[in-house]
Amino acid sequence: MPVVGMVGGGQLARMTAQAAIGLGATFRVLAGSDSESAALVTHDVAIGSHLSLDDVASFAAGCDVLTFDHEHVPGDILTALESSGVLVRPGSGALRFTQDKLAMRDWLTGIGVPCPRYAPVASVAEVETFTGGSWPVVLKAVSGGYDGKGVWVCSSAAEVAEVMSHGLSVLAEEFVPFRRELAALVARSPSGQGAAYPVVQTVQVDGICREVIAPAPGLSSRLAESAQAVALRIAAALDVTGLLAVELFETPGGGLLVNELAMRPHNSGHWTIEGARTSQFEQHLRAVLDLPLGSCAPAAAGGFTAMANLLGGTDPDIYDRYIHVMAADPAVKVHFYGKEARLGRKIGHVTIVGAPGEDVAAVRDRARRAASYLRWGTEEGD
Amino acid sequence: MPVVGMVGGGQLARMTAQAAIGLGATFRVLAGSDSESAALVTHDVAIGSHLSLDDVASFAAGCDVLTFDHEHVPGDILTALESSGVLVRPGSGALRFTQDKLAMRDWLTGIGVPCPRYAPVASVAEVETFTGGSWPVVLKAVSGGYDGKGVWVCSSAAEVAEVMSHGLSVLAEEFVPFRRELAALVARSPSGQGAAYPVVQTVQVDGICREVIAPAPGLSSRLAESAQAVALRIAAALDVTGLLAVELFETPGGGLLVNELAMRPHNSGHWTIEGARTSQFEQHLRAVLDLPLGSCAPAAAGGFTAMANLLGGTDPDIYDRYIHVMAADPAVKVHFYGKEARLGRKIGHVTIVGAPGEDVAAVRDRARRAASYLRWGTEEGD
Repeated sequence: MPVVGMVGGGQLARMTAQAAIGLGATFRVLAGSDSESAALVTHDVAIGSHLSLDDVASFAAGCDVLTFDHEHVPGDILTALESSGVLVRPGSGALRFTQDKLAMRDWLTGIGVPCPRYAPVASVAEVETFTGGSWPVVLKAVSGGYDGKGVWVCSSAAEVAEVMSHGLSVLAEEFVPFRRELAALVARSPSGQGAAYPVVQTVQVDGICREVIAPAPGLSSRLAESAQAVALRIAAALDVTGLLAVELFETPGGGLLVNELAMRPHNSGHWTIEGARTSQFEQHLRAVLDLPLGSCAPAAAGGFTAMANLLGGTDPDIYDRYIHVMAADPAVKVHFYGKEARLGRKIGHVTIVGAPGEDVAAVRDRARRAASYLRWGTEEGD
Repeated sequence: MPVVGMVGGGQLARMTAQAAIGLGATFRVLAGSDSESAALVTHDVAIGSHLSLDDVASFAAGCDVLTFDHEHVPGDILTALESSGVLVRPGSGALRFTQDKLAMRDWLTGIGVPCPRYAPVASVAEVETFTGGSWPVVLKAVSGGYDGKGVWVCSSAAEVAEVMSHGLSVLAEEFVPFRRELAALVARSPSGQGAAYPVVQTVQVDGICREVIAPAPGLSSRLAESAQAVALRIAAALDVTGLLAVELFETPGGGLLVNELAMRPHNSGHWTIEGARTSQFEQHLRAVLDLPLGSCAPAAAGGFTAMANLLGGTDPDIYDRYIHVMAADPAVKVHFYGKEARLGRKIGHVTIVGAPGEDVAAVRDRARRAASYLRWGTEEGD
């Protein structure tokens, strides 16, 4: 069996390690320290920095294919690895668009994918010109952002000035008064096979994903197919290997705008572990190994799956609350990432696979109650 | 989170390691060598012998609770650990019945559980007396057997003499002309909570489990409940902690006879990874940690799940065949154990979760075809 190496030791690598066990693929992780989420559970862990060509190259030397749990490996390291013959999946040509939001926007616009209106901006005056007096406006760091970091919704020139004072390279985007947020997750293999999961609804609070409902309730098949088609089209045009998550806005007029791209397992796909025939982690491994892709069909047709992220609360000793949650709902699936429960930090998620015909509000509620109880010791928390 | 240590590095420990990742339990394995199935994928592996009190005790010192992937740890080691305060789950009082089939038969008969007629035998003459001239007869080694090893179906005194010549301690059992074999898998926690999976049909060839169908097709609810009840009753009476698998014969008259017991995750429960809300591996961990037990409900109600064991064929290079199997059925789930594909050796299993209403023969066929192709390169093998 081939050896897959994943750069990054976070929860995505942790859950990929779990999927690799069944698949029979040998799995290695390059983690920053031995206490990282994936490093705690993976048999073969290398410790090193994803910012060091030496560390990444020596890790890659023990792998048949290299992939990633984040998008922070510098582009010059990726191209150096590729030049030396390492199979980097996805490749540097695709990954650069996850590291440069301006290039991503330009490229998407160039191939006709609908995006929010945007412009690079270098001064408060340029942002004011961009807004044309219509506030708020969204500023995004061109690189380095995640989980709401690097994104600012500004309601005044003063707020813009505060963001610009950090000296980051930013772009301005129109504030989209979206109806809701959706995500389309697809996989693509080097052989060109594509596979699309059901389109999901995501709920973000302060830029952090809090809930995912699969499939997106009440989404027309026209819009669902359109979201899947745009994701598959982007994956093919960028020659993505592995997963591509496309975050979308559903506009009040019933259209779609592409918000963000990620080329790895994605929080919007955690529901697939129990909710789909093939988990996104297994699918990513299949894709980077150029194995035939697995079925993206729901595990139980005719029902909803709800995923709620588990954030740290004020009492880090979660175990007693865990027991109560398990007792309250024997079908709740709690996933812990092995992370210390610091306030607001993503430390796990819970999944409820609803019965066919079970009301989506009830399924969401079960997931939300479990996550709230784990966080705060009450089912009525946020 | 507590630390669970499992003695034994086989595929059951491997799949338990996988379940522990999601559950957030810290998991350690005591393996005989670093090439054993579970040792290949578990982060925290100790190498040592399950026959050495020193090795097991020093392993146990790093664990909050000790459990097992096989029943071969000698009883005196188990009692010594218990005397020194180690939480051994299941305990020595229960485990001794998996190591001594005669004691198990006597105990089951004593509490009124229906078993095949049996007797301890020390000579060919005693076996002939037992048979009363009615052949065949089943001889079983009192201890140490597994996967058909230690069980002989003898059709003549000469065959009995051959078995007896090995000098093993054996018992004789009536040959039951069963309609089919069933298995009832239950879990029990130290708090006394019990949970029962749907009763399955198992298909054995040469004493090796080849197929499992969940739930057992056409089984009356009366018989299903009776099988679950007997398993829960045995678990409670023996004070079992963790899983208890009860292998049963369904007799031509529509009755049940208990064939074997196992107190660990069991081959008849591999289907639960995809086919049930809670996998048997997660359930075993929950039970030994005295966490509330998970739902045993099918993942998709109204359908069948089929599991086929994957045995080694004559060509150990399985990867090309793997690709074909994945391409032929995107919903097939193949689980590899990381073992060399020697002829006839259990090296993995495949699972098909059928759609609600899908014909059970079709579901079985999908699993069997995949396993056959992986083994022989043809869907028409055994």
